[in-house]
Amino acid sequence: MSTLKVALLQHHCTADRAANIARTALLARQAKEKGAELLILQELHTSLYFCQVEDVANFDLAEPIPGKTSTIFSDLARELDVVIVTSLFERRAPGLYHNTAVVFEKDGSIAGKYRKMHIPDDPGFYEKFYFTPGDLGFTPIDTSVGRLGVLVCWDQWYPEAARLMALAGAEILIYPTAIGWTPEDPEDEKQRQLDAWLTVQRGHAIANGIPLIAVNRIGSENDPSGGCNLDFWGNSFVAGPQGEILHRSSATAQEVAIVTLDKGRSEEVRRIWPFLRDRRISNYQNLILRYID
Amino acid sequence: MSTLKVALLQHHCTADRAANIARTALLARQAKEKGAELLILQELHTSLYFCQVEDVANFDLAEPIPGKTSTIFSDLARELDVVIVTSLFERRAPGLYHNTAVVFEKDGSIAGKYRKMHIPDDPGFYEKFYFTPGDLGFTPIDTSVGRLGVLVCWDQWYPEAARLMALAGAEILIYPTAIGWTPEDPEDEKQRQLDAWLTVQRGHAIANGIPLIAVNRIGSENDPSGGCNLDFWGNSFVAGPQGEILHRSSATAQEVAIVTLDKGRSEEVRRIWPFLRDRRISNYQNLILRYID
Repeated sequence: MSTLKVALLQHHCTADRAANIARTALLARQAKEKGAELLILQELHTSLYFCQVEDVANFDLAEPIPGKTSTIFSDLARELDVVIVTSLFERRAPGLYHNTAVVFEKDGSIAGKYRKMHIPDDPGFYEKFYFTPGDLGFTPIDTSVGRLGVLVCWDQWYPEAARLMALAGAEILIYPTAIGWTPEDPEDEKQRQLDAWLTVQRGHAIANGIPLIAVNRIGSENDPSGGCNLDFWGNSFVAGPQGEILHRSSATAQEVAIVTLDKGRSEEVRRIWPFLRDRRISNYQNLILRYID
Repeated sequence: MSTLKVALLQHHCTADRAANIARTALLARQAKEKGAELLILQELHTSLYFCQVEDVANFDLAEPIPGKTSTIFSDLARELDVVIVTSLFERRAPGLYHNTAVVFEKDGSIAGKYRKMHIPDDPGFYEKFYFTPGDLGFTPIDTSVGRLGVLVCWDQWYPEAARLMALAGAEILIYPTAIGWTPEDPEDEKQRQLDAWLTVQRGHAIANGIPLIAVNRIGSENDPSGGCNLDFWGNSFVAGPQGEILHRSSATAQEVAIVTLDKGRSEEVRRIWPFLRDRRISNYQNLILRYID
């Protein structure tokens, strides 16, 4: 087969874990009915974006993998006979937690995990408190629908992450995400931020000649401490290997977007734009430095 | 001073070298009259884009640096009291040639050179025949108007080049360019290519939190062998440190664009988007590999 139908599941989340999972399962069944073989879920889709505050009680949300919640998505993948990219809060050991994407094969088995490598920390996004930086490296995950370059949210700002996945043979870059605006930001700043988010990721698709999928949540979530409320900006999208927008969801609506990828297009594009051929690898050694000073 | 006025000189070129230089000088004087302190010229602005064919006679276009043509631009920089980024065909030794950007200080001295590192080779762009890959590395050039990350054309598709310049303290990314469409390409493919060119570079600005300037030629140039004609697509542009478009020239018109950069904006943006803080440098070592297999 030279095409692949992917589904992007964009929705809001609440504090009700069972309701979030039920919503995802409902959208997953809709995606399956529309013929999707690969389902992409947004970041931390079973809970509110709890990183708005630093609260040790939130570590109770984490679970081992495999564990109770991962089993639910394993069962769903097997039931629907689809590959699912999930994003879970992993309890690896007492006091050791990760922001982990888990990919389930059509038979419900775990095809692979990716532990978020780049961890942000900004007002309203206190992720360094919760998530130990990943130690699985930038390793694509092999599945029956292709080799998936799964990364998570903040990784999307890093060309290095996308390049390393592409060099390891990733056929699609995939980013579960939770990103939004602070309501107080002026409208022009909001637009710059959204446009930058779209643009830098489209740039990764272009530089590497492969399609890219980002799935973000919608909805407003209030900071329990009264500090930094967030309006998640949706806009889940798919870019082709020339960075062209193949689909873009709205900023506010729940949506199951189905997009058909042409799996042969990447090699066509890489033949006319042979960027991998001309990399000056003997002059890239300083990329492993923090700064050149 | 917290602002910098830059000028982008976009124009067509002909086989008449003296006329090309006179046109550039005229536009440079207009830029100076409008208050520009930093002038950016397009790639190989003293000649046609001769790489449409492989012809040993074209090596006659190359000159030593310093040399006759570089002296003209040195004199122009001193006369106008501006910094000028030029792009010349360098004859380094018999049989050894480079595509070299030369930056002249306001006093006419050479502030630095950059020899194009990534060399393309596609039908109509036979640069590997002419240009030995650069051996000066990705080193910014210090001038009285700032530390300039000067790169050239094909480099603009490589996030590695932009990142290395930023890590070495570049305050602006600058790309003299000669890029265009093959007239036979369908309109949708032309738009994808132009949009990809804008997008991947805006991505570099975003990933590194610094402004970016690309200056391209306009006009149609016929392949002397009757093969691959080129319509250079202009669209010289400036992006701010969030990738926002501050200026974009037309696809066909001669233009001296003057853009005022806010030199303090980069640090503001890097404070809200601290990408340099979170790079996972201990996991980037595979970036120096051709492929991970």
